[in-house]
Amino acid sequence: MDGKKVTLRDLALQAGLSVNTVSRALKDKEDIAAATRQMIKDLAKEMGYVGNALAGSLRSGLTKTIAVIVSDVANPHFGIMVKEIEKAARKHHYTIFVINTEDDHELEERAIYTAIGKNVDGILICPSQRSADTIRILKKNGVPFVLIGRRFEDEPEFDYVICDDEKGGYLAAKHLLESGHERVLYLNGPSRISSARERLAGFLRAYRETGLPVREDLIIEVEPTAGDTRKIVKQLIEQKADFTGIFAFNDVIAWEAVYVLQKYGYRVPGDYAVIGFDNIQSRMFLPFQLSSISNSKGKMSKRAVDILLHKINHPGAKESYRDVIDTALILRDSTKPSGRGDG
Amino acid sequence: MDGKKVTLRDLALQAGLSVNTVSRALKDKEDIAAATRQMIKDLAKEMGYVGNALAGSLRSGLTKTIAVIVSDVANPHFGIMVKEIEKAARKHHYTIFVINTEDDHELEERAIYTAIGKNVDGILICPSQRSADTIRILKKNGVPFVLIGRRFEDEPEFDYVICDDEKGGYLAAKHLLESGHERVLYLNGPSRISSARERLAGFLRAYRETGLPVREDLIIEVEPTAGDTRKIVKQLIEQKADFTGIFAFNDVIAWEAVYVLQKYGYRVPGDYAVIGFDNIQSRMFLPFQLSSISNSKGKMSKRAVDILLHKINHPGAKESYRDVIDTALILRDSTKPSGRGDG
Repeated sequence: MDGKKVTLRDLALQAGLSVNTVSRALKDKEDIAAATRQMIKDLAKEMGYVGNALAGSLRSGLTKTIAVIVSDVANPHFGIMVKEIEKAARKHHYTIFVINTEDDHELEERAIYTAIGKNVDGILICPSQRSADTIRILKKNGVPFVLIGRRFEDEPEFDYVICDDEKGGYLAAKHLLESGHERVLYLNGPSRISSARERLAGFLRAYRETGLPVREDLIIEVEPTAGDTRKIVKQLIEQKADFTGIFAFNDVIAWEAVYVLQKYGYRVPGDYAVIGFDNIQSRMFLPFQLSSISNSKGKMSKRAVDILLHKINHPGAKESYRDVIDTALILRDSTKPSGRGDG
Repeated sequence: MDGKKVTLRDLALQAGLSVNTVSRALKDKEDIAAATRQMIKDLAKEMGYVGNALAGSLRSGLTKTIAVIVSDVANPHFGIMVKEIEKAARKHHYTIFVINTEDDHELEERAIYTAIGKNVDGILICPSQRSADTIRILKKNGVPFVLIGRRFEDEPEFDYVICDDEKGGYLAAKHLLESGHERVLYLNGPSRISSARERLAGFLRAYRETGLPVREDLIIEVEPTAGDTRKIVKQLIEQKADFTGIFAFNDVIAWEAVYVLQKYGYRVPGDYAVIGFDNIQSRMFLPFQLSSISNSKGKMSKRAVDILLHKINHPGAKESYRDVIDTALILRDSTKPSGRGDG
């Protein structure tokens, strides 16, 4: 049999039975004797027979595939989400395509065309938010989808699962302010992204509560992918910018900021207090203890899969989904007040 | 059009042309006037028309999909590989399924059945190596595949792309030995995995060259996923195990080992020198400078995609592929000799 896909016919020939009998046996139909069913299943396993899902999908109209479109699966935040989504989807016999957009408009458009062209049953997407047009293609084609991690405030028909970004930004800033850091550098994501805008709103709320003036010059946008932060933090240090705390849009940016501070001989938390967002270190034991905002990636991923499958299985339903998962402050050494002065 | 997949027929109706004309225009056939072709393409874009790849695949016999089966996409090593594979595959108009096995035999078998059932054109797999049977299913079904990162020495027909693990193990051990660390703890992966066996062979070669005795009790197997290392390193510290250097099977294990050492108040490189494998920090700027062995993940991924596509496009060909990508020592602070005594 080596080298050609094992067919029902191969099985039938080997068993000396009809193709129909073999097919019904594999489907566990009770009109086939139990012993025969078992024999045929054993034979199928031995010969390496695999059913044809594609033929099945043409009958059912479902391909049992979903596309997961994210900016960059090499960022552990998305790596963890993709892992959780795959696990949840697998439980429902779904397989996932993974496509990276690098937060690029053209790549995102291509990703969406590719996914629709593959006849996926649905799509989970963390949109680049460079334009809502890409998402409208999904609407036009009636493909079920759920946004994950980001939302379009002006598009009430785009279902989403996000975390409470405003609260997360608030908690992070409040913690730094209460620890005595009145001048906080906020390395935010680009403002086209809803989560960047909402984390900033929370950040500003914490400042308002204290009555302290916000330092607009210390609110800086960086690209959330690796590399951009280095340049910017270097410049700020060279310019002797006046801050003692850093809040970063995500953990990758926070790590990179500390990386630069250390290169200049500064200590965290000795000289600077730093807090990130995503709490990646709940899953990875790194030799640097970064405080962060937890956004329950596992819960968010599972919830998004549940909603998507519900939409796939109830095509006429008119519910809309606007799920906001709670965020929480996770304290580690990088913002420890006792560390101040040690550097 | 909202809510139903846009069809060729919709386009034709809108344009007032025949389905055949619209179809030929979209394929850029020259018997359709250039202006008409452009008009139809613009209309297709405006209406959100997406071709049907599934129908195409039934004609060509190819689905233009490959499955990527890895142990855990949340490990940045695999996250980076999946990103590189997706990018390389996309250039050839291929889309990738991603399935995690958690290095579990049953999940791996299911992953392979799923991939074949989806009629993928080929498979890239980092095998759990709990058994070669799972891979034999691919052979039996004639599905093109390439192993990535691990190989079966007893199965010459299983093509692979790996890195030079023996050399990597040798370079890491040699560096620690030359830096004055004669007692090296080797936190290796499970010996069922070819790369763990080969890195160990290199490690032992470095010891042989120095004439120093190998401390068998300091060669310990840990699971490469997050969490297992913590327990083991804690035990070793509590037992006051006698070592000053650590070589870890991968960076995730190395980070976790340093995490524990720091919890006990030890400094790296002050008290211990630590080196990992995979060189993840060439892509992620972490606030801890881990020396590591580079295995050119980008090159390895691209090469594996090239070989797989060649096999897909030349089904009769009999070449076999045994590609070994070079490894190199990357020094960072965690093994800096000058750091000794600082702690």
